[in-house]
Amino acid sequence: MLEVEWLEGGITAVPGILAGGVAAGIKPSGRKDLALIHSPTPARAAAVFTTNQIKGAPVLVSTEHARGGVAQAILASSGCANVCTGERGVKDAREMTRITGDLLRIPPTHVLIAATGVIGVPLPMDKIRAALPRLVKALSPQGGRAAAEAIMTTDTRPKEAACRVEVGGRPVVIGGIAKGVGMLEPHLATMFCFVATDAAVERGALARALRRAVDRTFNRVTVDGDQSTSDTVAVLANGLAENRPLEKGGRGLRQFTAGLEAVMGRLARLLVADGEGATKLVTVSVRGAVSRRDAVAAARSVANSPLVKTALNGADPNWGRIMMALGKSPARVEQDRVAIAFGDEGLVERGLLREGVRLDRIREIMGRPEYEIVIDLGLGRGEERIWTCDLSEEYVRINGKYTT
Amino acid sequence: MLEVEWLEGGITAVPGILAGGVAAGIKPSGRKDLALIHSPTPARAAAVFTTNQIKGAPVLVSTEHARGGVAQAILASSGCANVCTGERGVKDAREMTRITGDLLRIPPTHVLIAATGVIGVPLPMDKIRAALPRLVKALSPQGGRAAAEAIMTTDTRPKEAACRVEVGGRPVVIGGIAKGVGMLEPHLATMFCFVATDAAVERGALARALRRAVDRTFNRVTVDGDQSTSDTVAVLANGLAENRPLEKGGRGLRQFTAGLEAVMGRLARLLVADGEGATKLVTVSVRGAVSRRDAVAAARSVANSPLVKTALNGADPNWGRIMMALGKSPARVEQDRVAIAFGDEGLVERGLLREGVRLDRIREIMGRPEYEIVIDLGLGRGEERIWTCDLSEEYVRINGKYTT
Repeated sequence: MLEVEWLEGGITAVPGILAGGVAAGIKPSGRKDLALIHSPTPARAAAVFTTNQIKGAPVLVSTEHARGGVAQAILASSGCANVCTGERGVKDAREMTRITGDLLRIPPTHVLIAATGVIGVPLPMDKIRAALPRLVKALSPQGGRAAAEAIMTTDTRPKEAACRVEVGGRPVVIGGIAKGVGMLEPHLATMFCFVATDAAVERGALARALRRAVDRTFNRVTVDGDQSTSDTVAVLANGLAENRPLEKGGRGLRQFTAGLEAVMGRLARLLVADGEGATKLVTVSVRGAVSRRDAVAAARSVANSPLVKTALNGADPNWGRIMMALGKSPARVEQDRVAIAFGDEGLVERGLLREGVRLDRIREIMGRPEYEIVIDLGLGRGEERIWTCDLSEEYVRINGKYTT
Repeated sequence: MLEVEWLEGGITAVPGILAGGVAAGIKPSGRKDLALIHSPTPARAAAVFTTNQIKGAPVLVSTEHARGGVAQAILASSGCANVCTGERGVKDAREMTRITGDLLRIPPTHVLIAATGVIGVPLPMDKIRAALPRLVKALSPQGGRAAAEAIMTTDTRPKEAACRVEVGGRPVVIGGIAKGVGMLEPHLATMFCFVATDAAVERGALARALRRAVDRTFNRVTVDGDQSTSDTVAVLANGLAENRPLEKGGRGLRQFTAGLEAVMGRLARLLVADGEGATKLVTVSVRGAVSRRDAVAAARSVANSPLVKTALNGADPNWGRIMMALGKSPARVEQDRVAIAFGDEGLVERGLLREGVRLDRIREIMGRPEYEIVIDLGLGRGEERIWTCDLSEEYVRINGKYTT
């Protein structure tokens, strides 16, 4: 097992990383809406983006820039997604990387860019041009929180995580910020996660570690099954820890990946817990599936079912809905083999209500802000988990009124 | 085009069909909860059931009985689904078909059975045994409405439809009742549709007509993407119209199928309009897809997106969410070819907000109880439509509190 020492703060807990956030006037509320993360040392970079066929202009530009494998800055705005804005949107995104590059004296291709907010409206470029010099001036080794705030949209609180892990016998720091919810199944409010580390990591190795950590964290959360046009996860590795650069197949890379997964897992859970209108963070664990793929499919079907999610909201042990969601999933399910428990309290055995079940205790568990549903399909050795939240009236209120 | 003459009433608009509904005490509310449809003349029967891997005991028994291709009765109860009830559930369902068969003097295998309600609780068989003789006595040629009422759960109103169509030059009547919502993507509240006709139809032909009509009606509606363990659609054809029995490949069968589709389409739209918490019935039409399959996938992705559905609820022309839902669908989508209109008012052209768009007019259309969203993918000739409804706070209230 990897020893993870959790640290205060987020992305600026990493040596050599500066960050800042200012209010540029993109958000009508006047809140912070422009964030910058900067590594004065050129850093290895890797990124993954939304798989939605409709992609925002910043995603197109960042995909291009990330291909180089080196970056020194991440510029992120909130309030306007710069999606479905045509050629003008791409031009605007490029100009923002150019101005930022000029101000930081780095090539524009070393700047990754991301935006979240309303779709179909162009960015207020005048305001952004005016704010960028101020944003660069605001960069500081304590600026992580301000950056975390500046990327929020419907988030109710900023999300930060940082830890220290030993990698090949040497301590390295991994820290990050995030906003929004979901990844493979994310919210239109868009999901961002920006992580930095002082570890030295080989190029292909960093991309591989990122893909693996994303697969086991952000790809395992769901809020509403929708998928943004702007989702972006990026990692910068500036090498200041002066470890021997981590390579594919090495023990050090496995340790680093576990650390990355720890930070990103914590950020992913923070996203779900702050899901729009969410009141509970529920882990849906499936075991006994015929394969890991089946376990994911079964867990995802339960975690996404509106009927299960409304029952979680009402703390109603309506296990028939879980059976229904298992049955409609592509995973192999045999009714008379299914067992379901809430926390350590069994509810269903062999597809039937367990004799002597203590429903009061299950209702008590369902009243907690965080708990686990354990489903055993009784068919094989596949296991996996998905983090989800409940579906509340508040979710509908928020999304029925979110501005166009 | 087929001429459809709409008739008053539902399933008992069909000559030779009796129906009735009584309160057996399954529902705690004391409302009607046991329905019976009866054709004294042996009728051709065809049925389709849920594809959920978890199936209720009544579905298992009816699947067996429907295999014979002849039926004379459909017994349906509401308040308790008899699902996840083990061997006892199957025994109870069989006993109900046996008692009903004895009372009607028909073989038990000529009785189809269906149940909707809470999962995991056994049926109150004493009450049902006591009520069945009363139910058989209540059968009448005017009893269609009572049967429609007795199958309701969270439905706010009974659903009936009936029409007369010419089939091979001879008028036949098709009438039915329905409850619940959805089919391929139905609600756990379960979807039933029971249809009768006086047309004479060959066995294989009836099954084929039913599959085709279901595919173009109930398989084209969605409320929440969940799928019941009890969905049942059944049709009885008693042949009293004395037409030449309709055969595969004949013009008469095509006319009959169109009539069946008309009745089932009307019932399907009634289901969506009465979807839990729904305030609007929205038709999502997609054309210009590379194939019909792509058109269905794109329409379904839009129709199922919680973010689109909450925007429909708020009458908010948030077209970015429609773009997002198109982009995440498995259908091929090219951003700069997409056009979107609400009714006859264009909103998006070539993936961008249409110049001179009249948002006020679009908001006005979105305020209507029923309207169409027309999406043109601009790629091919595939077209299809899905009926959906909005997602309201009321949906969450209903499902957060529906009893276990």
